[in-house]
Amino acid sequence: MTGFQQNSCMHISFCCTGTKAAPWVDELRAALPRASIDEWQPGSPQADYGVVWAPPQQFLDEQPGLKGIFNIGAGVDALMKLRLPADAIVVRIDDGGMAVQMAEFVCHALIRHFRELDGYADDIRNRKWSYRKPRSRADFPVGIMGLGVLGERVARAVDHFDFPVLGWSRTAKELPGVRGFAGQDQFDAFLAATKVLVCLLPLTPETQGIMNARSLERLMPGGYVINVARGGHLVDEDLIALLDNGHLAGATLDVFRTEPLPAEHPFWKHPRITVTPHTSARTLREETIAQIAGKILAFQRGEPIAGVVDRKRGY
Amino acid sequence: MTGFQQNSCMHISFCCTGTKAAPWVDELRAALPRASIDEWQPGSPQADYGVVWAPPQQFLDEQPGLKGIFNIGAGVDALMKLRLPADAIVVRIDDGGMAVQMAEFVCHALIRHFRELDGYADDIRNRKWSYRKPRSRADFPVGIMGLGVLGERVARAVDHFDFPVLGWSRTAKELPGVRGFAGQDQFDAFLAATKVLVCLLPLTPETQGIMNARSLERLMPGGYVINVARGGHLVDEDLIALLDNGHLAGATLDVFRTEPLPAEHPFWKHPRITVTPHTSARTLREETIAQIAGKILAFQRGEPIAGVVDRKRGY
Repeated sequence: MTGFQQNSCMHISFCCTGTKAAPWVDELRAALPRASIDEWQPGSPQADYGVVWAPPQQFLDEQPGLKGIFNIGAGVDALMKLRLPADAIVVRIDDGGMAVQMAEFVCHALIRHFRELDGYADDIRNRKWSYRKPRSRADFPVGIMGLGVLGERVARAVDHFDFPVLGWSRTAKELPGVRGFAGQDQFDAFLAATKVLVCLLPLTPETQGIMNARSLERLMPGGYVINVARGGHLVDEDLIALLDNGHLAGATLDVFRTEPLPAEHPFWKHPRITVTPHTSARTLREETIAQIAGKILAFQRGEPIAGVVDRKRGY
Repeated sequence: MTGFQQNSCMHISFCCTGTKAAPWVDELRAALPRASIDEWQPGSPQADYGVVWAPPQQFLDEQPGLKGIFNIGAGVDALMKLRLPADAIVVRIDDGGMAVQMAEFVCHALIRHFRELDGYADDIRNRKWSYRKPRSRADFPVGIMGLGVLGERVARAVDHFDFPVLGWSRTAKELPGVRGFAGQDQFDAFLAATKVLVCLLPLTPETQGIMNARSLERLMPGGYVINVARGGHLVDEDLIALLDNGHLAGATLDVFRTEPLPAEHPFWKHPRITVTPHTSARTLREETIAQIAGKILAFQRGEPIAGVVDRKRGY
């Protein structure tokens, strides 16, 4: 019964920019029936927990007593730029149905490129029935930057289709079927052995602009870039230059420095760039609410919870 | 040394319609250096083995002494329509690098449909940045007809992405992660529980036209058809009628009753049909030659080999 007593005095404030609050608040109330849960407004009463996505600084300034800030996405980079209450833990979603979405999105882009399905579609539009010489998957090693929950799941999926898989992470990780590289020392070797580069890094000062002219030109000729992390990882002009000089064959980009992608941005119409509107792994409300509710109750009981962000490291 | 002695008197005739013979003959010679291997011409000398794809009847009539006929594809339906030498075994490719290609092709089509990636691409072409409500994969059970080497591999891949997987086969099969249905008795129940129907059956008199108005209308509303087996499995007009009346959402078709697809065929321009030119799983020369060479040597030594066709059953 302890849980119920704790619930009864628990206040949760919902503050997610760009998200329709009503269904979230309703479902959070259903999941935590003894808590009081409201959409944040300037001047709202103090809350114990915040459920947030890109909240305004004002929310945090007005809520110094927050014990926990639960981010409804996997990336906390927008949050970490703000001044946060000193004692609040910051918690990100760990999976919540996003990992399998990421795996299928990346595999779709990889297969579309490897099997030249865009080229076939062009032919079919022109009523042309034609074959292309099958490519060898040995010539398409896939290098994944970032081996967290999402990166590891993507690596498993790419391995399932028998592509050579390489992984690069800050600290060394051993994953079955993945040739591991770690740290700055092994970054160039990782790039040189990669044909299809998949970015799943957290965005931190260290990884800002990590895909630039210097790094991308080290990819194998005919390289391909799949960015499903953050727009800030990529130097847009450098990618375009390497596509236009022929070193890279194409890119699938789901994330951008400014979202929505500005109307005048060259990515919209570049013939070898596929743009999607930050949809690779969507927050699934049901799974996310179940996860956050479970974590809040566990935290209240003093139990350890997964996905707590290291505020110094930034993810 | 027995193998070499047997090789030295072995004749192989290569007779593959629509396939450039020179690289195949060269690589077969490299794989079986003691055999004599030639491209078949009318009047060619008697051979012990044929390596074939859709050979003319004349080839078989002139080669009554064939001990084995090795088909360079997985489907032997074209071959089984011909009069074959009475004592020859007919052997199909079992995998040869095709299963993983089939798995990736089917998953690409499934993910493209499930994630509405064509709709996103249309939006992006119109510089529209928009979200669609994520769909639940529980609402997209994938039913696979045919659980041979290819069907089983596709089932594994679909299961990898957490879709519910159903399988239907002539005789009952138990596969991990697959809800199995067998025979005519369970066909309707299989269809009623399927949203995305994948055809990987062999083409036989029993499976000819199996996807018709009666069967396709039993699929869940909003159903989707992926045909990667043979064009003869599908009644073209019935598919179009069910797409046009809205019961089915779309189809990806890689195989057709007549190939290349005739210029006037309505599939070319149907807005909800994706056509590909029989490219879902291509014969990979290197793997195929290694497999056929290995099987010929094993057969010569009197060992059992995989992929021998049951001539009565037809596959």
